Amino acid sequence: MLLRVRSAVSHLVAGLGPGPGTQPPAEPRHGGGGGSGAGGEEGSRVTAFCRPAFLQLTSEELRRADDHTGRAVQSPRDGRRRLPWSTGYAEVINAGKSQHNEDQACCEVVFVERRPSPRGHQPCRDGSGEPDRGRRGFYFHYWALFDGHAGSGAAVMASKRLHLHICEQLRDLVDILQDPSPPPICLQHNAELSQAEDSQEVPSDALPRFHLEKAVSHESLVIGAIENAFKHMDEQIEQERASQHISGGCCALAAVYLMGKFYVANAGDSRAIIIRNGEIIPMSREFTPETERQRLQFLAFLRPELLGKEFTHLEFPRRIQPKELGKKMLYRDQSMNGWAYKKIEEDDLKFPLIYGEGKKARVMATIGVTRGLGDHDLKVFSSNIHIKPFLSCFPEVHHGGPGAGGALQGCPEGTRLAAAQRQAGLW
Amino acid sequence: MLLRVRSAVSHLVAGLGPGPGTQPPAEPRHGGGGGSGAGGEEGSRVTAFCRPAFLQLTSEELRRADDHTGRAVQSPRDGRRRLPWSTGYAEVINAGKSQHNEDQACCEVVFVERRPSPRGHQPCRDGSGEPDRGRRGFYFHYWALFDGHAGSGAAVMASKRLHLHICEQLRDLVDILQDPSPPPICLQHNAELSQAEDSQEVPSDALPRFHLEKAVSHESLVIGAIENAFKHMDEQIEQERASQHISGGCCALAAVYLMGKFYVANAGDSRAIIIRNGEIIPMSREFTPETERQRLQFLAFLRPELLGKEFTHLEFPRRIQPKELGKKMLYRDQSMNGWAYKKIEEDDLKFPLIYGEGKKARVMATIGVTRGLGDHDLKVFSSNIHIKPFLSCFPEVHHGGPGAGGALQGCPEGTRLAAAQRQAGLW
Repeated sequence: MLLRVRSAVSHLVAGLGPGPGTQPPAEPRHGGGGGSGAGGEEGSRVTAFCRPAFLQLTSEELRRADDHTGRAVQSPRDGRRRLPWSTGYAEVINAGKSQHNEDQACCEVVFVERRPSPRGHQPCRDGSGEPDRGRRGFYFHYWALFDGHAGSGAAVMASKRLHLHICEQLRDLVDILQDPSPPPICLQHNAELSQAEDSQEVPSDALPRFHLEKAVSHESLVIGAIENAFKHMDEQIEQERASQHISGGCCALAAVYLMGKFYVANAGDSRAIIIRNGEIIPMSREFTPETERQRLQFLAFLRPELLGKEFTHLEFPRRIQPKELGKKMLYRDQSMNGWAYKKIEEDDLKFPLIYGEGKKARVMATIGVTRGLGDHDLKVFSSNIHIKPFLSCFPEVHHGGPGAGGALQGCPEGTRLAAAQRQAGLW
Repeated sequence: MLLRVRSAVSHLVAGLGPGPGTQPPAEPRHGGGGGSGAGGEEGSRVTAFCRPAFLQLTSEELRRADDHTGRAVQSPRDGRRRLPWSTGYAEVINAGKSQHNEDQACCEVVFVERRPSPRGHQPCRDGSGEPDRGRRGFYFHYWALFDGHAGSGAAVMASKRLHLHICEQLRDLVDILQDPSPPPICLQHNAELSQAEDSQEVPSDALPRFHLEKAVSHESLVIGAIENAFKHMDEQIEQERASQHISGGCCALAAVYLMGKFYVANAGDSRAIIIRNGEIIPMSREFTPETERQRLQFLAFLRPELLGKEFTHLEFPRRIQPKELGKKMLYRDQSMNGWAYKKIEEDDLKFPLIYGEGKKARVMATIGVTRGLGDHDLKVFSSNIHIKPFLSCFPEVHHGGPGAGGALQGCPEGTRLAAAQRQAGLW
């Protein structure tokens, strides 16, 4: 079935328009400001099952999209005109795994409005849904895939909120990012700000700078904003999971194009690649029980109580049988990349924290990814052992700076950014 | 002064003979077997100050080597003949830092003798100091640099013992590494072995193999052996530091050439490079407070008691002044690569776990490296806070497999391996 998505992808890529930077920003779908911010609610439950709004599916098409037999590939009906940057998208249901497609996607142009001074009272968005272009701020383009599991709730909510959390984190940085001088290390006190009518938080450490002071780039502020947005998104899911009936969890992969630079944030095992002149440039690393083995083992080594006396933090190449007690078996711990033999002790008979290989690798025999959003109620089957402490909601953010990512800067024609999970692709 | 070492290096490299593999192994300096093993003792104190034995310094030359004014560059007198593989070496004292040169080096050919069966009684080494070539085993070539600090004891002891620990770890693997079939996952019980006269530990999991079994390569066994050798070396220093008067600690960088493959193990901030046809290929990564920030912060976050109420695990771009309480300042924690602003709280006024930039970066204002051997008694100045929990004795091992390291396999003529710290170089 992956072939069917690939085929649709090839078809659409062939008909793509010019690359980024060659057309004006599309109409923004979300104003960035507002008192409600990322936590805002349109009234209805935000985690009810749906497909991405840009697919514009009729009820009949929605039924077809959920058909586990036909497995129709879904793409935006008028994708080339409707999505910014001629973004392509294709998805298909993962047959037999769940009633509905648990994955989600989002493609938006977001206006980040400079946070008004405490005494200002501007509304966050005008009636038309468009920001006032006279106000200070900037746009960012945003594309994201959410690979859901154990329910669609987390993926649906993240697809509707993550970009707003990113926007919220960027609002304090509007002036700083637009100022070519290095970001200030320290800002004025909040209370002092309310006395300055038309100024955002201002640096308190003007020249001369401190002797031992680390240089911080504008890009690293954007990365920090995206990292914290993921954290806040995860906290919101945790807080609202009961009232909003948010089920499951999701990997999240988001690409942000801001002020001429790309930032690709990945928390999970989806992939982002750049295709440039036929060359494939990876823009993300996958986070799986195998790639994150040492982080997980280190945590379990320091906090053995998280293993609930049922698991061992050591890794073995296969399950140990009770009759093998006292024999020597290969193992590795949180500090090792190689393998060595150890005499099997009683404690080693517990199930390994990390077990299996490739796509079958699991954390505590439960989950095959190690980063993402949600999963706050996920437990080891038939136990009270929580998985969440081992899952990180923090993404790794690659950005288009010097090095491999540098390919992104400027984004010449012929460059396409593609993000993929097994059942969906955005490009 | 680095220029003087460089000049000596250039001079010697110019006169180098053919590369590895083109000459028979030099005479081994150490038999690998024996009851005393890596823990053996020649009688005199092994940590008394000295220079590498291969320098063959007279007492007058030793005095010159310690002259902080003249800073003579020391090289082996007949290096090209005496050291295997025409290995070059140059060192100079780090003027004004300590009375003696705290750094050490080692260059050896080591015979790893298959561990005799429990009922065998072969001596480990014959009277001439040469292993019996009829016995089963293999040689490895070994080069290492130890960048000492706060005393020369740890570096001296590691230079005399680390290769023996590696040898000791490899002794159980002699048959396994020489057998082209995949290493066995599980070995027979030790007790059973004593009944089998001429067999080492033998696999208990002959075919058919288990369904979910991870493939383990021969190379990963060597890597595991080197990793555990570093751990045992560190434990030996810990155990004998009182009786042997072992002071200080050291970074350790070791290169092992075994069965046609190179393994470069690095615990510290020294560097190994391959020079091939003028191209420089890095063979190690440096471990500093900056490169290991997240590991250290993660440990401090999980074990805040290690910070002794004097440090915070958060990083700030500069020291915070008490008057800045309540203002917003840039920070990052164990999960972040970017920076974000946070409101300064009382707890943030503590000294940061990681502070400073580049060569001035320090862990708890004390040490500028984060991996190495020794330092078991190192504390934050005028406190009872131990640094050691944050220092890892485990090396990262690169080996000549597919990828960059692949350049090492075969080691064509013109390929040179060079290891450097600021005051010494081996090539």
